[in-house]
Amino acid sequence: MGGDDAPGVVLAGLELAAERHPGAKFLLIGDTAKLEPLLEQHPRARAACILRHTPDAIPGEMKPTLALRMRGASMRMAIDAVAAGEVAGVVSAGNTGALMALAKIVLKTLPEIDRPALAAVTPSGRGDVIMLDLGANVQCDSRNLVEFAIMGDAMARAVLGLPSPTIGLLNVGSEELKGDDRVRQAAEVLKAHPSLNFHGFVEGHDITRGTVDVIITDGFTGNIALKTGEGALKLMRDLLRQVFTSSILARIGYLLARPALDRLREWMDPRRYNGAILLGLNGVVVKSHGGTDAMGFAHAVDVAMDMVTHGFTARIREGLASINTRELAGDPS
Amino acid sequence: MGGDDAPGVVLAGLELAAERHPGAKFLLIGDTAKLEPLLEQHPRARAACILRHTPDAIPGEMKPTLALRMRGASMRMAIDAVAAGEVAGVVSAGNTGALMALAKIVLKTLPEIDRPALAAVTPSGRGDVIMLDLGANVQCDSRNLVEFAIMGDAMARAVLGLPSPTIGLLNVGSEELKGDDRVRQAAEVLKAHPSLNFHGFVEGHDITRGTVDVIITDGFTGNIALKTGEGALKLMRDLLRQVFTSSILARIGYLLARPALDRLREWMDPRRYNGAILLGLNGVVVKSHGGTDAMGFAHAVDVAMDMVTHGFTARIREGLASINTRELAGDPS
Repeated sequence: MGGDDAPGVVLAGLELAAERHPGAKFLLIGDTAKLEPLLEQHPRARAACILRHTPDAIPGEMKPTLALRMRGASMRMAIDAVAAGEVAGVVSAGNTGALMALAKIVLKTLPEIDRPALAAVTPSGRGDVIMLDLGANVQCDSRNLVEFAIMGDAMARAVLGLPSPTIGLLNVGSEELKGDDRVRQAAEVLKAHPSLNFHGFVEGHDITRGTVDVIITDGFTGNIALKTGEGALKLMRDLLRQVFTSSILARIGYLLARPALDRLREWMDPRRYNGAILLGLNGVVVKSHGGTDAMGFAHAVDVAMDMVTHGFTARIREGLASINTRELAGDPS
Repeated sequence: MGGDDAPGVVLAGLELAAERHPGAKFLLIGDTAKLEPLLEQHPRARAACILRHTPDAIPGEMKPTLALRMRGASMRMAIDAVAAGEVAGVVSAGNTGALMALAKIVLKTLPEIDRPALAAVTPSGRGDVIMLDLGANVQCDSRNLVEFAIMGDAMARAVLGLPSPTIGLLNVGSEELKGDDRVRQAAEVLKAHPSLNFHGFVEGHDITRGTVDVIITDGFTGNIALKTGEGALKLMRDLLRQVFTSSILARIGYLLARPALDRLREWMDPRRYNGAILLGLNGVVVKSHGGTDAMGFAHAVDVAMDMVTHGFTARIREGLASINTRELAGDPS
């Protein structure tokens, strides 16, 4: 029931997802009076769905503390279904703060994971890149950064299909002495980790350059860096639109270059990157943008399917077993 | 003597700068055996210059601690000339770490400024934006952020010529409760400041959107955000180049749209944004990119001239006098 054009966009997205994942079953939770007429228009979604009725939905702007009390809300019932083992994961286009708070409280973190992190896939000049944390934790210590690296590694294997993803720790320079104690300590532990392919420190421009497959940072910096990069790409799209409508010759130029420009537009289509994942919980939790369309929502479902089917959680457990926890015990910051 | 093609680029840049600032005099410090023959080719620079000889120059990769010992180096002699009141500011394309360390130690911070900050001008959809700190301080407390806002305000008046620049504090959301104590405390003080036009929290995408004239953040986040935005713009430039060389039709399309595309390229030309400023010292210190050309170096000189001629330091003193220092006393971070 969450998102700007819910539940219409969700059902249209589910129609696409049901087509892409023929074996999958979906538990659809919400107001059946609204859902049933829409399902008539989406036969594949209807065939793949089990409906569960609730009249309550968490409003988009409700504070997480209040949302936690709405035990009958559709989002809460979906997360409860994950906790009960009834479903493997949840996809929501609703209130982000409420989803994160509910998921943490109901699903709990994996053993040995201190804090869950928000991760997403973002484009680079050398293929897709995974970045975390994107804002679940505005303050992080070195232990958190190491856990993020282990989770990012597992996600890159599951979602990007890479056998040995390279991992970079975001810093203000690539030399070993740069940054604060927190990133330097995390780098020491990551360097010694037996199963992670740690590249070392990377800088802001390495995100779009695709220097590494996984970018690790704290939630404050990660949130700001992701939105800065998205903002720069959006500015360029807007300016190009102005360029190609600035004169008749420019319009003709656009038409001539259109096949290649369309490929570029497709490549940077934000819908292809829809679906941020809350990593580190007992269950898969994917957040779709509230303003996306059916194609974007279907992509968020793809991400959840990849996480579920590629043994993401087992891989994290392996990675965690290899950290020397003593090295990080009593870590300040 | 600093930068990739020094001193050739520096002198060619000075030739342009001397043309733009007919009243200005430049003290040129370096190896006169190398400088004199080059000056023959640059009559305007030669007429506006006083030469001072030293055979020593700080190498590009030298650690700041070692650079501090080179008392006869050209960079050191230039900063000493600022300290002696002989010149109003210094522009260097040399070793950044050495420049920052030397400037802090030799020039000292302005009274009541705790730490200097690195600032630069960056493009947005609604005009140029000033951003700081870009890496001078990887850890900042709320008092530092408030000082950065006062310095950014003064710089926006001097360099962008704005009578009342709007100021935004970078955060993971624009709501008052977002972020950590540090940014929330700084926002409280900025809100109460009598002469600052404080807009509130801004997010990563607000940088290129041009929501505010001045973006304030800590040096860790600022360095990463700036480089992330630059990286995204560079990726787009590279991809557009690929688009317009991908087929004969696309090449023709490029030629037709060229006037508008050239304006776009000019607008985002990194040389127009060359010249980062170390703010908060007793004297103007501008760092040019080491890899820039004559036009970029001349722009760094422009920035220094603006700072000197627009009463930057006086404005900072005014702004500082208005902060309630008690409010921030004993601030943890």
